[in-house]
Parts: sequence; structure tokens; C-alpha cells
Amino acid sequence: MAQDTFSKEETLAMRRRLIGHSCRLFYSDDPVKIIRARGQYLYDEHGKRYLDCISNVQHVGHCHPSITEVAAAQMDLLNINTRFLHDNMVQYADRLAASLPDKLCIFYFVNSGSEANDLALRLAQQYTQHQDVIVLDHAYHGHLMSLIDISPYKFRKLSGQKEWVHVAPLPDTYRGLYREDHPNPGDAYADTVKDLIDEVHSKGRKISAFFAESLPSVGGQIIMPQGYSTKVAEYVHSAGGVFVADEVQTGFGRVGTHFWAFQLQGEGFCPDIVTMGKPMGNGHPLACVATTVEIAGAFTANGVEYFNTFGGNPVSCAIGLAVLDVIEKEDLRRNATKVGAHLKQLLTQLQTRHDIIGHVRGIGLFVGLELVTDRRTRAPATKTAAEVVKRLKEQDRICVSTDGPWENVVKFKPPMCFSIQDADLVVRCIDRIITEMATSDLRLEKEDV
Amino acid sequence: MAQDTFSKEETLAMRRRLIGHSCRLFYSDDPVKIIRARGQYLYDEHGKRYLDCISNVQHVGHCHPSITEVAAAQMDLLNINTRFLHDNMVQYADRLAASLPDKLCIFYFVNSGSEANDLALRLAQQYTQHQDVIVLDHAYHGHLMSLIDISPYKFRKLSGQKEWVHVAPLPDTYRGLYREDHPNPGDAYADTVKDLIDEVHSKGRKISAFFAESLPSVGGQIIMPQGYSTKVAEYVHSAGGVFVADEVQTGFGRVGTHFWAFQLQGEGFCPDIVTMGKPMGNGHPLACVATTVEIAGAFTANGVEYFNTFGGNPVSCAIGLAVLDVIEKEDLRRNATKVGAHLKQLLTQLQTRHDIIGHVRGIGLFVGLELVTDRRTRAPATKTAAEVVKRLKEQDRICVSTDGPWENVVKFKPPMCFSIQDADLVVRCIDRIITEMATSDLRLEKEDV
Repeated sequence: MAQDTFSKEETLAMRRRLIGHSCRLFYSDDPVKIIRARGQYLYDEHGKRYLDCISNVQHVGHCHPSITEVAAAQMDLLNINTRFLHDNMVQYADRLAASLPDKLCIFYFVNSGSEANDLALRLAQQYTQHQDVIVLDHAYHGHLMSLIDISPYKFRKLSGQKEWVHVAPLPDTYRGLYREDHPNPGDAYADTVKDLIDEVHSKGRKISAFFAESLPSVGGQIIMPQGYSTKVAEYVHSAGGVFVADEVQTGFGRVGTHFWAFQLQGEGFCPDIVTMGKPMGNGHPLACVATTVEIAGAFTANGVEYFNTFGGNPVSCAIGLAVLDVIEKEDLRRNATKVGAHLKQLLTQLQTRHDIIGHVRGIGLFVGLELVTDRRTRAPATKTAAEVVKRLKEQDRICVSTDGPWENVVKFKPPMCFSIQDADLVVRCIDRIITEMATSDLRLEKEDV
Repeated sequence: MAQDTFSKEETLAMRRRLIGHSCRLFYSDDPVKIIRARGQYLYDEHGKRYLDCISNVQHVGHCHPSITEVAAAQMDLLNINTRFLHDNMVQYADRLAASLPDKLCIFYFVNSGSEANDLALRLAQQYTQHQDVIVLDHAYHGHLMSLIDISPYKFRKLSGQKEWVHVAPLPDTYRGLYREDHPNPGDAYADTVKDLIDEVHSKGRKISAFFAESLPSVGGQIIMPQGYSTKVAEYVHSAGGVFVADEVQTGFGRVGTHFWAFQLQGEGFCPDIVTMGKPMGNGHPLACVATTVEIAGAFTANGVEYFNTFGGNPVSCAIGLAVLDVIEKEDLRRNATKVGAHLKQLLTQLQTRHDIIGHVRGIGLFVGLELVTDRRTRAPATKTAAEVVKRLKEQDRICVSTDGPWENVVKFKPPMCFSIQDADLVVRCIDRIITEMATSDLRLEKEDV
């Protein structure tokens, strides 16, 4: 196993020679080589430490020793496909079921959020016998062909919009159609979905699914307005479709107060299908689809086996169980609630001093800082956001990145062990950088206008 | 981590309650619970040992200690996405490149053979700017929506054949269009692809790819006739398409004499895209697409990032490297050649004594035993094959399974450490079972006619 066999320049040269260039690097002008990590910290080949504010995959912290221990023990004992009986998969499904509303009680284990979303789409179409899908604007649901079709973020740059895909407005109360001054943005945005359904029906087409992240991530770290999902689910059910909640980025307690982000919409709301992925295996390729007895039954009724070679194997499920154990034992949801609230508070304070901060939003350790060149027009400060990301890396060795249609939302989705001190540090550094930029010649935000 | 928490009945009951029934069990009437494995042996909850003739995923043997050691060490050190530089991915790509013809020198790492085939299809369509795909009859390329579309084995039972998918005859010289008595079946089968291309062109459509397993597996453990792939590649290239070799089942030395099964077609043949998966991580979710500079370049030229969350992470690549090391250190290709030849020879001897054995074929540890009720008509002995599988499990604790359009091909694709003694045992047991069946009232083969 290589640890640091090559110099960074050699690694980069080999990468350019051997790996498809569509696979991009962070900080492409001067990428970072990481050889070790622990908790919320990354270490480069010189032992220099980086604070990691973006690895939501390494959910309970990088290289958590108890996950490694469980994985190694199970790898030594057995790894086999699920055509044989094994306790780990059923025990893991049972644990996941306990975290979900009762009706979400049937599980399919797969290897990635993309595989989960592809299967969710199959389940929805098989159950409803309808084809059409409603997605949110700017959504991203994965890299597979079927998911590019339902991801405006991708299909606009690639194959274009299919006739069976319909794009609803992003329920973004800062930048969207209905904003913070609207008396009931949840209902208003839900009505845009209703209108879209009517339009679809008028073409003689039928809805299989409304497919959305519980908190749209690539869309710009969006917090759905209250009431939205319940109303949308009503409209979608009336049309004979199902509600798919993509929890690939947001599940497993990231929002702190709840285990699943869809639960923020209240007890009255329950999706028909939930997909999960990234944080599930703390870096191990593990993902899942949860659904109802009825939907699973319709899928079984087609008489065709669903076999996923690696999905649900004893090692993956042992790791999944160990991740759940760590979330509980280390009370990481409480930490996410506490540190996330602190981070949001500090950023909100910063907003009072820096006009460029248009909006601070978030819940738990899912936080966005939206930069604008003009608070009135809310024109995105894309270049400033990129410069903040760059300077945080170069000056402070802090990794953040941007999201949103204009890449002007600095996002925070760190490992769940992120601390109060980490939050203090990153906000202090952002404060300094924005101050520097405001007083220097580098008033990049002007160029954004 | 659960080892044997529940009784087999409890595990089964939980599975029925919690896991989608489309996920099927082997031996569904009386499934096997496995709690431990090593090398080519599985152990149930009572410590009873099963000989495993089918786990091609656990390629270098179940729970190989050196793989576990490497995995645990890397898990303890770093697991991160490939937007950061790391040596493992580039070193692994370099090792894979050394096993392939020079022109296959660009790699994309993913989590499953299905993800690899989906990406291969994207690459082919992007590069050629054509849509249509030619596949072999009875082929299976994965569980994703895009792959069901190009898998006759699945789409015939599900969504049906799309207008952009075209099915060429399976080049099966035992049961197919051209048989062992044909002077040049390779050319003759290749001509069926040429005819199909002409037909596609006559409809004003264009070929993006010919997509085939190097040795069709679900199709019935088929050995392609010599010359076939070279000729097909010529025709496909003339039509502006690319040749995709699906090595998900067959790569990494299973055929013994060569590292990749496509190499059996001679040095003159080189695919444009190769997909790999199952054996690659010895059970860890790891897969890959290898292609040319030109095809990767066209994919980059669309300007859109390809990001696979877990693909190519340091743990997956460390495991991949460790698997390559074990294949070399333990000379597993030589073992596959030797034991595979021995197994084939024993089965061929058996054929002289049992009329029900219509055909024995294979190369290395990829072997098929085709059962027929009538050697002249070659009518498939499906029920007998199922009974052989059942009795091997119940009487001898040997796991084999069946493949082929009529499920009458008993297949062998064991871990590569499978021994001469293992081969002797399984053939002795098959001999006994077929003898029993021939002399008992249970002459199931009659019912097959």
C-alpha cells in the first residue's frame, strides 16, 4: 500500500496521464495531496494540518478507530453476497427501520447514492406504472445516465431535458420566486408543483415521482420552507405518484435535531421512498433505499430478481452498524445541533459587519453562507466566494467549497465531530479574508455585477 | 457487529420482513446461513463446511489475510474522495495499465460493475455521438436502468427492447446458429453483427457501441470462437462505433493463460473500452473503466465533471493493489490454468459415461457443464441441472449454480485458490448424483423434453 511513494508533482503527473480529466481536483491550480486524516483534520505530505469543513462522507470523523476495528474484524470473518443469509444485513435494516416512520420498513442495500437513486426511480415507475418525474431546479441526484436525466444541474450541460422530466422551482426563500416576505412560502412553492402536475396531465402524461433532496445541496444549501413537503406529497399522491426523499447528503443526523432531514417538515410528512448514501459507511461504499411494503411488493410482482453483487454484504453492513453506534455513543446529533447553531450565530454576526454576506442559513452541520454583491438585488458574488475558498486554503489551511447555481454559497458540511473551536476559527478567518478583500484593490465583487 | 446473533429461522424471518423480496436467496426452499469463510470454504452457523464453486467475487479466496491487513491499515490512515491527490489511485491505475494493451491507458474508478458499464455506455455515446448499441442475446450487464436496456436477459422480462438496442446472436458453438461443425464460426458469427449493423444503418440509425462480455456468463459460460472479436471490432469501427469488453465476470486472471479474457482472441484484438468489477476488490465494492486517450478526451470535452463519491478512494485502491499482489505472489493464474484444465478433463471423462452431459467447456476457472435430455436435439435438461445443484448442496455441501437461457449449464467460477482436490471432489459428487438420478425413479430429464 502506497502512503507517500511519489512527490506531489509526480502524483499529479501520473494522475494527469492515467485518470480521465473529467475527474476534477479541488484547488485545480494547486491541488492538495492528503496522506492522513483523523477526526475533522487532514494532513498533507509535509504533515501540515487542514481543517475539513466539507467531508460529509466521513460523517463520524475521518478514520474513526472503532469503524476500522469493526471493518477489519468482519473482513477477516466473512464477506459474501446476500444470496446467503447473514445477520448483519437484517440487523442493520432493523436499526434503520427504527430511525424511520413505521411505513418505511423495506430496504434494498446498494453501493452508492447513485445506485440508490437509480433503484428509487425504478421502484417509483414500477409501482405507479407512470413515467414522468418532477424534480427541483438545479438538483443533482447522481452520475448515472438515469440520474443525469433527472438532474437539471447536469442535463442542462449535457443531453438536455427529456420529455418525461419536469422542473419545479427551487423552494429557495432567499433567492427564489417566493421569499422571506411571503406569508406562506411553503404553500406557495407547493402550488408551483401542483401547477406543474396540471400541466403534465394536460399533455396526457402521468407522474411517477416527485424526486427531491430533503435539503437541496448543489442547489445552494437550501432549507425547505415549512409545509412544503406535506403539501407536495398531497398533490403528488393525488396524481398517483410517489414522493422520493433523497437523503444522500442530509441523512444520519446531520441536521442535529432529527435523524433525517425530511423530518424537519413535521410528523405529518412521510416520503414513500427514502434514498441514503454518502455518510452511511463513513467512506465505505454503502447506500440504501427504504420504501413501503406496497412499493416493494409491486417491484417483486414483476417477477424479476434484483441482485446487487456487493450491496448489503456483511462487511458493508457491519460498517453501517458501527457508524450508527458511533453517532449514538458520541452523541453526534447533539454536537451537530450545538456547533451548527454556534456557527450560524457567528456567521450571522459577521453579516452585520460585511455587506457581501447576503444570507446565512442552515440547520445542524448543514450551513450555507451566501455572498452577494448587492443586498438589494441579491446579485451573486461568485468570484468573491471563489476567492474566499482559495484564501482559506492558502492562508489558513481550511477546506470549504461553494455550491448553488452561481457558486456563490460557501458551504459547511463537516464531519459531525466538528467543534466549537473549529467554528470559531473558520469564522475568524472568513472575517479576516472578507475584511482584507474589502480594503484591498482586489474588490472582486465589483466584477461580479 | 453481529456474528451469529439470531437463529437461522429468525434471520430468515427478519429478512422476509425487512428486505425487498426481489432480492433472492440461493436455495430458496432451504437457504444457507454462512457466518465465516476462508479460501474456497464457507462455514454455516453450525460450523459445517461448504465448498464454494461460485464466488468469483472473492477472487483470491475468502477473507484473505493480506487483503484485510492492507484494508485495515489504509482505513486507519486515510479514506477520502479523489478531489484530493493521493498515491494509491495513480499507482493502482499504473498497475492496471501494465496488464492492458498500451492504448487502454485512461482509468475511471467506480464502485460496481454496473456503475462501470453505465459509464462505459456514456463514454461510447459521447465519443461517437451515436446512440445505438449492439449486444449479445441473453446478455446481462447490470442492474441499473441504463443497463437493463442493454441486457436482453432483463429487458425481455421488463421494459422490453428499446429502438436503439439491437441483439446479435450469441456466438455459442454448442447451441447457437453456427456450431462445432462449421468451418469458421468466428467469422460466421461476426457476419451476423455486420448484417445487424447494415440493418441499423438502413433505418438511418448509427452504432455507438458493440457491448459484450469477453466470455458471456449469464448466457451460459460461453467461450467465443476464435477470430470473432477481431472481425466484430473491424465492422463496428467501420460503422463509427466502439468495442466495449465487459470483463466484470472474467478479468483478473480467471482464464489463467491471460489476465483479461478478451486477450484469448489474440494479440491482434484490442477493445476500445474495458469494464471491470466483481473480483477487483475481492468483495470490496470496487470497479473500473479503462479506455483510450481519444475516448476519455471526448468525454472531457463536454466540459462536465465526472465525480464518483467513493470511486477511487485510497482504501478501495489499496485493496485493489493488494489483490493484484496476491494474484502474483500466489501465482493464482497458474493455479487457475492447472486446476481448470484438470476440472475440464474430469468433466469430459464424465461425459463419456453420462448421456445427460451434452457439453463441457471452459478455460481456466471459468467452466460450464451443459446438461441435455437428448444429445442430438440438445434439448436443455433444466430440471436435472436444478436437481444436481440441490443435491450437491444437500448431500455434499458443495455450492454450484446454473446459467444459460435455459438454466441448464452448471457453472464453476470458484475462488482462484480452488484446488485439484476440490475439483476431484465436486466431479466425484456430480458423478454419483447423476448416476443416482439415472437409476432412480427421479428421471427428471424426461420431464424436460
